[in-house]
Amino acid sequence: MIRSFCGVDLGGTTINMGIVTDNGQVVLEKQVLSHVDRGADYVVDQIVATVHDFMRQGKQKYDLCGLGIGVAGLVDSKNGLLRQAANFPKWIDVPLTSLLSRRLNLRVTLENDANVAALGEYRYGAGVGCPFMMMVTLGTGVGSGLILNGEIYRGANGVAGEFGHITIDYNGERCACGRKGCVEAYVGTRGILREAESMCREYPQSSLVAINQASLTPKIIYEHACAGDEAAIKVFERVGQLLGIGLGNVVNLLDIQQIIVGGGVAMAGDLIINSARLKLQESALDLGKEPPRIAKARLGSGAGVIGAATLAMTMDCS
Amino acid sequence: MIRSFCGVDLGGTTINMGIVTDNGQVVLEKQVLSHVDRGADYVVDQIVATVHDFMRQGKQKYDLCGLGIGVAGLVDSKNGLLRQAANFPKWIDVPLTSLLSRRLNLRVTLENDANVAALGEYRYGAGVGCPFMMMVTLGTGVGSGLILNGEIYRGANGVAGEFGHITIDYNGERCACGRKGCVEAYVGTRGILREAESMCREYPQSSLVAINQASLTPKIIYEHACAGDEAAIKVFERVGQLLGIGLGNVVNLLDIQQIIVGGGVAMAGDLIINSARLKLQESALDLGKEPPRIAKARLGSGAGVIGAATLAMTMDCS
Repeated sequence: MIRSFCGVDLGGTTINMGIVTDNGQVVLEKQVLSHVDRGADYVVDQIVATVHDFMRQGKQKYDLCGLGIGVAGLVDSKNGLLRQAANFPKWIDVPLTSLLSRRLNLRVTLENDANVAALGEYRYGAGVGCPFMMMVTLGTGVGSGLILNGEIYRGANGVAGEFGHITIDYNGERCACGRKGCVEAYVGTRGILREAESMCREYPQSSLVAINQASLTPKIIYEHACAGDEAAIKVFERVGQLLGIGLGNVVNLLDIQQIIVGGGVAMAGDLIINSARLKLQESALDLGKEPPRIAKARLGSGAGVIGAATLAMTMDCS
Repeated sequence: MIRSFCGVDLGGTTINMGIVTDNGQVVLEKQVLSHVDRGADYVVDQIVATVHDFMRQGKQKYDLCGLGIGVAGLVDSKNGLLRQAANFPKWIDVPLTSLLSRRLNLRVTLENDANVAALGEYRYGAGVGCPFMMMVTLGTGVGSGLILNGEIYRGANGVAGEFGHITIDYNGERCACGRKGCVEAYVGTRGILREAESMCREYPQSSLVAINQASLTPKIIYEHACAGDEAAIKVFERVGQLLGIGLGNVVNLLDIQQIIVGGGVAMAGDLIINSARLKLQESALDLGKEPPRIAKARLGSGAGVIGAATLAMTMDCS
């Protein structure tokens, strides 16, 4: 029998699950709808049924040693509670781990999805060999997970890692959180769109100008950048610079060696990352140390499942 | 015999040393000139002689279990090297711990002074019971030491904790490090003086206006603030606000529960701290956690010695 772990990426719309072996290979995979509105018990039933499916499919080949769950929200990982989450509006303090471990007779661990992704990249992705790193997920918002001393860093109340809400300009642009000049206000979707608007004013000949502002997305801007539109390229360069300034703050405070960038907007990877890298070199103090590196995430869409399984592995060893 | 540890606060001008018991009491103390220009061997001789003095004075009452040294500079604490330090210009990679442990037949540990102060406050000062905290030392520059999970946090290369060089305004004031908008550019001595200059323009009736700009110091400004000068009060309020914004970044990233403020400028403690506290409340995300606290350092000028002895204690237990 092959030692293996079940990873669960619990989202508002779908639950992605997989069986992952000791060496990070996903050997079985399944996606089911989460039907969050039907309540926690229904979701638990779905997860349990999928685990049983996996075991049937595996024909006793896999020795399931634990299950890990990653979820976007406020998690009390010590007590296995999903405290609250935007995608699960009616769920408050749901004891997901005990609900599942009772049914499956397995060790179950729960963690915030940003931390799960960071752990996955650290063990099997772009962060291998970097026990001091941060994973940044670019999308509508800016998520992040910290690995310090080779472990997920959670902080005093389990809510560490709000890289998106450190300010780089206290008089700057208003962020969705209500504060000013947060990294997310520049690097999140809203920030990218605002930057595009401003570039359109500066470059009236840009191919972006013809597009209805309301239908503009980072993806469309990226396509124009790939087609060579100067304004569109500059949007991502500028966003990358501001990301680099924010990363400089983290490097100066925490002396991390690697930053891994993932998420939807990271498709504009090279444009953003090259520019962030240059700015980070300026922003990070030179203290005779190896300069910090920025790399693209390697696990891609599988990060949630692999990371969650990694979480279960880590617990199994501790 | 009483279990005790020797703490050494190694400065460019003086070496402060003390014998500290298990419960953080300084039972013997001595200050000697460091004569850095005479080289590392001379300094080692001085420390060794002072330890022998202590032992004679103690009349075999103290069981010396270890010695800790704190020094302002780049330290490789794992290998016990003082890599480089502004106060010791010709010292490069000096193996202070092995030089001393050989002579004293004691376990010797070396650490950056900001980390030492943080550890001292955590164990015996304003940070007791707060395993996630940062100690900020305000002076010419802005130093800081992080305690995470109840331990000194050093980072990948041992240079973590550059709180003074995280930017809060990427287009802001030029810092001594060459970057823009660092916390130190606002909260360090230069920042305070610049703020005073600007307040003098705004408040021509201020008692600060009569003072020669070149002879102005934070201490003088503080005295005018205590005497009720509005401009002088506003200088520290403003400095406190900017400190609070910087602290908000640390709290959002690291979910620390306590910040301890010490150092020369912290004499203007309540003025700066109250204003920093208000701003931190705005800057820190409310994630259902207990709001972070700001407190004044408790160990005062003894922090260096007590902290260094604490370092030796911690090592003794590990």
